[in-house]
Amino acid sequence: MLDIAHTTICAISTPSGQGGIAVIRVSGSEAIAVCNRIFQPLDKEKTVDRQKSYTLNHGQIVKGDTILDEALVSVFHQPHSYTGEDLVEISCHGSIYIQQEILKLLIENGCQLAKPGEFTQRAFLNGKMDLSQAEAVADVIASSSAAAHRLAMNQMRGGFSKELQSLRSQLLHFVSLIELELDFSEEDVVFADRNQLMQLADNIKVIITRLARSFSAGNALKNGIPVVIVGETNAGKSTLLNLLLNEDRAIVSDIHGTTRDAIEDVVNIQGVMFRFIDTAGIRDTTDEVERMSINKTFRKIDQALIIIWMIDTTLFNKEIEYIADKIVPKTQRKKLIIVLNKIDKLSQEEQQILEEEFLPHVSAERIYLSAKYKQNTEKLEKALLEAASLPELNTDDVIVSNMRHYEALTKALASIKRVKKGLKTRLSSDLVAQDIRECMHYLGEITGEITTDEVLGNIFEKFCIGK
Amino acid sequence: MLDIAHTTICAISTPSGQGGIAVIRVSGSEAIAVCNRIFQPLDKEKTVDRQKSYTLNHGQIVKGDTILDEALVSVFHQPHSYTGEDLVEISCHGSIYIQQEILKLLIENGCQLAKPGEFTQRAFLNGKMDLSQAEAVADVIASSSAAAHRLAMNQMRGGFSKELQSLRSQLLHFVSLIELELDFSEEDVVFADRNQLMQLADNIKVIITRLARSFSAGNALKNGIPVVIVGETNAGKSTLLNLLLNEDRAIVSDIHGTTRDAIEDVVNIQGVMFRFIDTAGIRDTTDEVERMSINKTFRKIDQALIIIWMIDTTLFNKEIEYIADKIVPKTQRKKLIIVLNKIDKLSQEEQQILEEEFLPHVSAERIYLSAKYKQNTEKLEKALLEAASLPELNTDDVIVSNMRHYEALTKALASIKRVKKGLKTRLSSDLVAQDIRECMHYLGEITGEITTDEVLGNIFEKFCIGK
Repeated sequence: MLDIAHTTICAISTPSGQGGIAVIRVSGSEAIAVCNRIFQPLDKEKTVDRQKSYTLNHGQIVKGDTILDEALVSVFHQPHSYTGEDLVEISCHGSIYIQQEILKLLIENGCQLAKPGEFTQRAFLNGKMDLSQAEAVADVIASSSAAAHRLAMNQMRGGFSKELQSLRSQLLHFVSLIELELDFSEEDVVFADRNQLMQLADNIKVIITRLARSFSAGNALKNGIPVVIVGETNAGKSTLLNLLLNEDRAIVSDIHGTTRDAIEDVVNIQGVMFRFIDTAGIRDTTDEVERMSINKTFRKIDQALIIIWMIDTTLFNKEIEYIADKIVPKTQRKKLIIVLNKIDKLSQEEQQILEEEFLPHVSAERIYLSAKYKQNTEKLEKALLEAASLPELNTDDVIVSNMRHYEALTKALASIKRVKKGLKTRLSSDLVAQDIRECMHYLGEITGEITTDEVLGNIFEKFCIGK
Repeated sequence: MLDIAHTTICAISTPSGQGGIAVIRVSGSEAIAVCNRIFQPLDKEKTVDRQKSYTLNHGQIVKGDTILDEALVSVFHQPHSYTGEDLVEISCHGSIYIQQEILKLLIENGCQLAKPGEFTQRAFLNGKMDLSQAEAVADVIASSSAAAHRLAMNQMRGGFSKELQSLRSQLLHFVSLIELELDFSEEDVVFADRNQLMQLADNIKVIITRLARSFSAGNALKNGIPVVIVGETNAGKSTLLNLLLNEDRAIVSDIHGTTRDAIEDVVNIQGVMFRFIDTAGIRDTTDEVERMSINKTFRKIDQALIIIWMIDTTLFNKEIEYIADKIVPKTQRKKLIIVLNKIDKLSQEEQQILEEEFLPHVSAERIYLSAKYKQNTEKLEKALLEAASLPELNTDDVIVSNMRHYEALTKALASIKRVKKGLKTRLSSDLVAQDIRECMHYLGEITGEITTDEVLGNIFEKFCIGK
């Protein structure tokens, strides 16, 4: 566990840029003393050091003789603040110049510029929230759909933390008893009731399995439901993708900024986020390089929850059956939507012949559309929304959406399975105890009872400055 | 004067985008009632309607069963708020989704989205500040240099408002007495002491003249000191401008965003803003089109406070004397800097010959540099800073930087001159009274004692939403 630095930190907490108001946060043991030096209240009695917790005060931020701004100052005394430390918030005019000058003034008066997420990190280190809650703060801020927001809010408000902490303390109870037995090993005593331990292990296995399984949905809610678009070359995959991306709705991928290249294009369709994955065209080929690229397409199918198979209705050939053979085995537990493109070039009659004679015998929704002329795309959107069928999230639903949590849960699951097996096979107690300790370790990693500087560094560096 | 609308308005007051915190402002008679409906305090007793003025409260923003966010709510009871109305500030997580959802929730509960500057407009209409102070709020937010900031702060804190208001009420005193005389015109009484009135008019003339004269400096401080770069074609004017623009320092013109095309490039050199105006090359020509463009250059010289005259030291010809003849008469009350470019191509000896034989006999600072190889540009910057010689602004200095104020002052000056002339020539009292009323009108326009919906509309539409 990190020591809480004895520094007082400051940062602009509102979005960067010019606006009506900006808020500068100051947290730490010197927060009140520093702000007291730079703030002159209108009512001379109400200096920052005399200001009551959870009150606001109007006055001027001064640097020597210069009035930098008229501002409101809020004071929160420790431990009843966001960080658990003395915290002051300066609400000033949202001029870029003023924001920078006040920040400089605070630093001249002994504050340090906060690192990304440092306010939240201090909140965690001061026990105001556990680690999974702290991580959820960043998710709350980044969430751009109703579902992702609700997911992050649930996690921030406690989520599975209490449940995991309770399981962990029950495990601790048993492992302590087992370790006590080991101390008395020559007397062959039994303190830990093995049946109760088995029950607990069963219970933990069920809970962890449920949480780990929820990750697929949680990840889809948080990052968008992965949709792969496959088909033969020139079936119109890219046109369709552009069409879905360029509709009136917002393309949310630009929120991710610099990571745009790394992630796929994310589109918000009626509040549900879809992450579209374009692929190389599939065809039966002997060309080694093209084969590699086609194999990559198949791997992308594995990552998706929804597969859109695009067929050029004007161009029927043997590839249809070839692709069907390749795709269909992969559609178990995934949704398949067949999109028949270029219908603008077909008569009603031709469509019927096509339907009866040429289409593969695959049970899947079929949508006729023209990507080029934007015909029937609303039908595709409807089909996507139906295929999404994400769980309706309730305020108290616990769903894992964080990869770090998922990995820890997977490892905890392996440990608890070993505990169960050890109990069944009457493995020596010290080995069972070791597996219990391991399970506890992974559960503790999620809530932050077990952590390292490196883990904390990785988590908080992804935060924005000022939170 | 506008009626204050009986609506409750809301807006995101922090800069747009994602950040740690965002602040949503709600102002109007229903502000407390609306926020009370959507905010559940942690401490159930501390509902918004029971919350004391200038206090903060922690709780949840709820929409039906959904928790939109954990937030802090500040309450300011009228008239002790920014707008003079009941005002609530919701400090929420800076997620774009949350900001939008809370705004939607407020609107669903009867609030209206605030127009640009509407909070400040209400502050003006409720008598919390006069119009020149309200205008200064936008200047404070937009100011991007220490000088512009100080100027705007002085104006926001009262500036010349009190002085103008006092002059105006003294004029009112006299005009009332004169109008009373007119009521008793048949009795030939004199209530208004003409000598005192003349003294007041003298005094007003001095004050207004001083204020109107300060506009040149004020405008330079606010918008940058206008510097025109002139010279023969190919003297390197554009290279120099690019050099000044592309140095490490920030080019501040992008802050103006969409107005970039309309304004010149503004550069902050050691805290002083310079507005550089490029011009067409000057030469003696008979070509009518080129002549028009050269005349435009001369007009730009009139707008500038500093003239940089660039001379190509490798290319001497008759243009030198021609340009000197054209420029020198215009340099009165302006600073002239002669930049001798392309010194990289000259030997020390050649420089000396140049200095002795070819340069015009103009008294002005001479800087030898190479724009291409960035030699001696720091000397030019130093010369610019010296030539700027802007007044050192003190906290109480009153400087006019607003074009609207300048125009009103100019008109008030004309009126007061007519008053003086009328008194001297013993003009009939009703005509003098009319001139006094006119002067009062223009003074009142500045502070907003006289205003129209159109004037207010023009002023506040330039504000950002949320202020």
